[in-house]
Amino acid sequence: MRTSFAIGIDVGGTRIAAGLVERKGRVVKDARTPTPTNGPFGIVDTIIEAVEHMSEGVHPSDIAGIGIGLPAQIDFLKQSVEFCTNLPLAGVDVRSLVLSRVRHEVTIDNDGNLAANGEYRFGAAKGARDFIMLTLGTGVGGGLFLDGEPYRGSRGMGGEVGHMVVQMDGPPCPCGGKGHLESYLGRPAIAARGVKLAGTAKGRAVLDEAAGDISQVNAEAVIKAALKGDEAAREILLEGGEVLGRALVGLVNLLNPRLIVIGGGIGEACGFLVERAAEVMQAEALAGRRDATFTQGELGNDAGILGAAALAFDEHDSREAIHR
Amino acid sequence: MRTSFAIGIDVGGTRIAAGLVERKGRVVKDARTPTPTNGPFGIVDTIIEAVEHMSEGVHPSDIAGIGIGLPAQIDFLKQSVEFCTNLPLAGVDVRSLVLSRVRHEVTIDNDGNLAANGEYRFGAAKGARDFIMLTLGTGVGGGLFLDGEPYRGSRGMGGEVGHMVVQMDGPPCPCGGKGHLESYLGRPAIAARGVKLAGTAKGRAVLDEAAGDISQVNAEAVIKAALKGDEAAREILLEGGEVLGRALVGLVNLLNPRLIVIGGGIGEACGFLVERAAEVMQAEALAGRRDATFTQGELGNDAGILGAAALAFDEHDSREAIHR
Repeated sequence: MRTSFAIGIDVGGTRIAAGLVERKGRVVKDARTPTPTNGPFGIVDTIIEAVEHMSEGVHPSDIAGIGIGLPAQIDFLKQSVEFCTNLPLAGVDVRSLVLSRVRHEVTIDNDGNLAANGEYRFGAAKGARDFIMLTLGTGVGGGLFLDGEPYRGSRGMGGEVGHMVVQMDGPPCPCGGKGHLESYLGRPAIAARGVKLAGTAKGRAVLDEAAGDISQVNAEAVIKAALKGDEAAREILLEGGEVLGRALVGLVNLLNPRLIVIGGGIGEACGFLVERAAEVMQAEALAGRRDATFTQGELGNDAGILGAAALAFDEHDSREAIHR
Repeated sequence: MRTSFAIGIDVGGTRIAAGLVERKGRVVKDARTPTPTNGPFGIVDTIIEAVEHMSEGVHPSDIAGIGIGLPAQIDFLKQSVEFCTNLPLAGVDVRSLVLSRVRHEVTIDNDGNLAANGEYRFGAAKGARDFIMLTLGTGVGGGLFLDGEPYRGSRGMGGEVGHMVVQMDGPPCPCGGKGHLESYLGRPAIAARGVKLAGTAKGRAVLDEAAGDISQVNAEAVIKAALKGDEAAREILLEGGEVLGRALVGLVNLLNPRLIVIGGGIGEACGFLVERAAEVMQAEALAGRRDATFTQGELGNDAGILGAAALAFDEHDSREAIHR
């Protein structure tokens, strides 16, 4: 039976987005709501409310299923949440909790993998057999597509692009490691540098973006000041771009992808950061690997929703194929 | 037609090894000869002599073909040598030059990929769907097997494990980059640290291994002294193991492999180095990825020959399947 819609849910550190998506990738209806801060059940309740909202007025048999992206390390085969830095979801059986209260199949995956899936099915990576997706946001996530398939590794947990070591004696990473890409390029890292800058004479522009209150300086303040032309703020992000470039040197030497897609809030806002990363990669990667194309994500905030919906369609179609 | 033998050639920086190999991986005959230093044609001549030597007394129709591993970056689809640090083979059409003078099909590949192929078909990685092979020798090479297939990337040049950035401000790498794994763990890097040590009071044991001549101190002198229990020499290699561990943190976070096989001369000689790398990886990788198994290569010096022969069998069988 060929269903018409899937529901994609994208759980982020600060907001939960949901969409009712057609097979060809059109988002028919969507909604965003802040991520609850009252624990895992609040998050699950919000997911269920979003599902109910999306499925209003649609016949249940027209819905292929529900895909949920979580900012977490997920064992895809077990459908379990193994590890989660920014939300209290580690060990929470999100899939079963949702499944018990809705009428559709539920599949969970890492949000970076789903953003990659969205760009592959409907966006900047359409038709690319080998590409790397990086999402620059609160964390640095991503997904690998290798030989035309999402690559998840032996336990379904590959693709953690943000947790490659780029500087052995580098700063701590929110994951507990040291000198990872995310230690330099996640929102907390950029915010910390912004706070330091805001306490100096050159930090006026960044401080202004935080209404003069240094305790309110965050990554967005740095980005806004940089986009308005402030050199010191721009320098912080350009240095992030250089670190990203060095991580990409390793990645292209290892995986020789054709295409690199940079998405996430920071990646989509800061073209100059992505350009600097591309320059560094092209200058320092091994011969023959430098021709990887760089592009910014095309789907913006919808990448996660679309990737999650595409996953739900795929899972539905595999089940149908088995039952046929 | 089911052929009985393939010829595997493994071209190294210092020696060219050749073997006549049965389908099940038995090396029926093999030979090693120093790598000529009189330019590319000398190397090609030596390869051809090795082929003639291996095929003596075997009916040509019993030989599936010739596989050649080169310490070079190879565009596998084009069968071209793109880049070669340690031998003068960049841009040399090794495949055609050999093909024009022998009676069998010829396929070239990167030596690290072929060592991985050998371990996968006949050695420590038999049956592993996802594993990473690292060869620690003059350079740090390797190969990726993902989802049960050798992974070569979009242009056939993936798998350069030695050229991941582990320290952005690190020492130069023979490839021209900076702070790559090979900058710390290749023979030249170990030799340089050995020379430095040999000039100090603690360097007596290493100097002794070079017959008291500091200009003769090389990586092998460091390894020999370490294996005899010299702490200072051991420390050099343990530090190399730590850097390897950090590179592996990034690799397992990215690729979530089940198995890591460490081969090459240094990898097979220095179990304590491999152990240190495993400790670092297990302490610092993300949860759920730390259970990757470490093992040393099983095939020793034959890994390259066996992998090259397996490639020749595969290529032969694909041609047969197409013609059938």
